[in-house]
Amino acid sequence: MTTWVPGAAGSLFDVDNLPYGVFCRAEEDPRVGVRIGDHLLDLAPLVDATSDLHDVLRAGSLNPLMSRGREVHRRLRERVSRLLTDESERPTVGPHLVPLTGVTLRMPFEVADYVDFYASLDHASNVGRIFRPDQEPLLPNWRHLPVGYHGRAGTVVASGTPVVRPRGQRRGEDGPTYGPSGRLDIEAELGFVVGTPSALGTSVAVGDFADHVFGVSGLNDWSARDIQAWEYVPLGPFLGKSFATSISHWVTPLEALDAAWVDLPGQDPRPLDYLAPDDARGLDIAVEIALNGVVVSRPAYRSMYWSPAQMLAHMTVNGASLRTGDLFGSGTISGPDRNQRGSFLELSWGGAEPFGKEILGRGRTFLEDGDEVVLRYTAPGTGGGRIALGEVVGRIEPAQG
Amino acid sequence: MTTWVPGAAGSLFDVDNLPYGVFCRAEEDPRVGVRIGDHLLDLAPLVDATSDLHDVLRAGSLNPLMSRGREVHRRLRERVSRLLTDESERPTVGPHLVPLTGVTLRMPFEVADYVDFYASLDHASNVGRIFRPDQEPLLPNWRHLPVGYHGRAGTVVASGTPVVRPRGQRRGEDGPTYGPSGRLDIEAELGFVVGTPSALGTSVAVGDFADHVFGVSGLNDWSARDIQAWEYVPLGPFLGKSFATSISHWVTPLEALDAAWVDLPGQDPRPLDYLAPDDARGLDIAVEIALNGVVVSRPAYRSMYWSPAQMLAHMTVNGASLRTGDLFGSGTISGPDRNQRGSFLELSWGGAEPFGKEILGRGRTFLEDGDEVVLRYTAPGTGGGRIALGEVVGRIEPAQG
Repeated sequence: MTTWVPGAAGSLFDVDNLPYGVFCRAEEDPRVGVRIGDHLLDLAPLVDATSDLHDVLRAGSLNPLMSRGREVHRRLRERVSRLLTDESERPTVGPHLVPLTGVTLRMPFEVADYVDFYASLDHASNVGRIFRPDQEPLLPNWRHLPVGYHGRAGTVVASGTPVVRPRGQRRGEDGPTYGPSGRLDIEAELGFVVGTPSALGTSVAVGDFADHVFGVSGLNDWSARDIQAWEYVPLGPFLGKSFATSISHWVTPLEALDAAWVDLPGQDPRPLDYLAPDDARGLDIAVEIALNGVVVSRPAYRSMYWSPAQMLAHMTVNGASLRTGDLFGSGTISGPDRNQRGSFLELSWGGAEPFGKEILGRGRTFLEDGDEVVLRYTAPGTGGGRIALGEVVGRIEPAQG
Repeated sequence: MTTWVPGAAGSLFDVDNLPYGVFCRAEEDPRVGVRIGDHLLDLAPLVDATSDLHDVLRAGSLNPLMSRGREVHRRLRERVSRLLTDESERPTVGPHLVPLTGVTLRMPFEVADYVDFYASLDHASNVGRIFRPDQEPLLPNWRHLPVGYHGRAGTVVASGTPVVRPRGQRRGEDGPTYGPSGRLDIEAELGFVVGTPSALGTSVAVGDFADHVFGVSGLNDWSARDIQAWEYVPLGPFLGKSFATSISHWVTPLEALDAAWVDLPGQDPRPLDYLAPDDARGLDIAVEIALNGVVVSRPAYRSMYWSPAQMLAHMTVNGASLRTGDLFGSGTISGPDRNQRGSFLELSWGGAEPFGKEILGRGRTFLEDGDEVVLRYTAPGTGGGRIALGEVVGRIEPAQG
C-alpha cells in the first residue's frame, strides 16, 4: 500500500500513521482532519449528509468521533487509508488535501479528567533521591501500584501555546516567599486519550484497554519545582503543575501503534491479579527532548515500569467511571542513563549539576525565559518504517504582573 | 417582603434563599428552577423567546446561567423575588409553581475541574495525628497556604446517587491486598461553584471572589481511608477519593449568604500578601451530619482557618484559569470539639474509639453497607431568619463483583 500523496510515502507520516487533529482554514469553523505527509486531509467533505459521521467530522473537537467506539474508528481508518493509496481516488480526494502550512491546528479534544501517573522506575527513583535525600528513594507502594493523581484539565493546552512562568509560594530561609518560579521544568510524557466511556461502579480490565483508549498524544507536564516542593505534602502536587500542561495537536490512534508493543522490562514483586502482570505490555516509543533546537535527552518509553493498560485498570478499579476525553499521562519518561532523563530536575540533578555545556555552549539547570522546548516521539509503524507522534512545542514567557 | 407561596414564609426556603437547581417533569427536558418553600418555580415560562435568558433557563445544567456574570444573576434574583412576593403576580406565576414531590431533581451543573482543599485546622491536625502519629500533626506548609489538590470531576454525582463501596489496594501484613474498602468514610464539606471564568495567565484576587463564584453547594467527599492511606504518598489521594463525590441538588447563590459572613478565627503567622489576610472572611454555616436518621456531629463552618476567597486566590496565583462549573471544596469541616468532627475517621479516632453508642444503640466506626448519610447546612438569611443550603444524601451499596 503506497500512498499517492506527494512526499508522504516513506515519511514519518506515511499511510500507516494517519493521526487525527482539529484544524481551521481561513474563516471556516474548526473540523476534523487526518495528517498524511505534510498535508492534512479534510475529512468532512468525504461523507455526505446521510452519513452517521457527518456531524462528528464537522465538530470542533475529536470528542464526538472518539466516543463512537473501536469499530467505527477501524472502518474510518480503513476508508481513509484506501482513499490515500488508491490512485483512482486521487481526482476526488486530492482537492481536500491541504498543505499543513495553510491551516491552523487547534486543541484536538476537550479534556474531561486529566490524571498523571508516575510510571517510570528511574524517574521515581531520581525524584525520590533529589526531593527526599534522607529516605529510601522509592516509597513502599511504588512497585505495587501505578502511583497517580488528578491534574487540572482546564489548563491542558495545545502545542505551541506560550507558557507563562508561574508565580507562587516557595520555601525560604525565613519562611515562605512569593514570586516567579525559579525552578521551572518540563516533564516529557506520553498521554493516553479515552474514547469510549465506562459506567460508574465498573472497572476496565487490563485486557480491555483498546476498547476504551482511542489514541496517544505527546505531553509536556510543565512543573515549577520550587512551588511543588513546598506545597506537595500531604495532598500532592497542585499549583506546581496546574498552570499548564501541553499536548500535541495530533492524536495517534492506537491502531497505528500495533507494531510498537513490547514486553515490559519486568515487574518485581509480581503485582496483584487485577493488574494482570502476564498480559501487560509496554510501548517502544523513542522520545527526543530539544532545548532551543539542541537535543538534550533521548528517553525511551520502553523502559517504563507500569504498562498503560495497568494504569487504566488501576484508575478504574474503585469503580471510577471514564468519560470521552479523559486524558492520562504516563508520568515523566526517564531511562537508566543520564542522557535518557525526562526532566531538567533530573538532567541537572536538582540544579546541582548543570548539563549540556558541550552541546549548548553553557551548562543549564532549569528553564529560562525565552527557552523553547520541543518533545518529539517516534515508534515502529506497521508498514516496516517508523511513524512520528505529534510533537509538543512550548516557549517560556516571563512571569506577569 | 413576604412571599405569597403557601408555607414558604418563615421556612428555611423563604424568599431570601432562592437556590437554583435543574429539574425534570414527566417527559419534558430538564431545565432551570428556583426553590421556594416546598415548591419549585419553573423559570423558563417566565421569559419569552426574545429574552437573553431564554435558552439559558431551558438548559439541562446551570452552567449557561452561571456563566452570565454577577449583574445578570442579581437582576434575575430581584425579578424572581418580586414575582414571589407581589400578590398581584400570583395568577400569572402560580401555575409555574410545582410541588417538589412532582419533579425529579438532576445534577445541577457540569463540573469542569474539581479541587478539594483542606482548610480546617482541626481536621488537618486530627488527620495528621491519626495518619502520621510519629510526626508533628500539621505539616510546615499548612499555616502558610491553603493546601489543596485536584479530584475527579467525572465522578461528582448529585445527592441521592447510591455510593457503591469501592474496591482497591490496601496495606496488608504480608504486602498489599485487594478487596472492598473496610474503612469507608464521609467528609462533610462546603462546595464553591465558579460562574465567571478567568483567563490563563491571570490570578483572581481575594477581593474579586464574588465576581467569579456563583454560589455554594453541600458536598460529601466520600473517602476510602484504607485505600487512601496506602496510595497517598507522594502524589496525594487518588482512588481513595475518586469513586464518588456527592453534591446537593441546590446551588445557593452567593447573594443569599450576605448575612453569613463573619471574621475568620485568626491566622497566625500572617499569610503572604496575595492571600490578603486583612480582607479574608469566613462563613457562619451550621452543619449537621445524620447517620441513619440520627445526628452524630454538628460541625461549624465558621471554625475554618482559610477563607473561601483565599482558596480561590491561591488556586489561581500561578495563572491557572477558571472555567464555568469549576467546583472547589472546603475540605472536611471539623471544629475543636469531638461532636464537631466532619468525618468518621475523626469521630472514631481512626476506628480505635467507636462513637455514638448512646444515640445509635451501638458504637460505630466506618460506614457499613446500607448506611445512609445526610448532610444538612443552615446559615443566617438576609431576612433575619435562617436559610438552608441543599442537603446531601447518600446510601452505601455493597461492593460489586
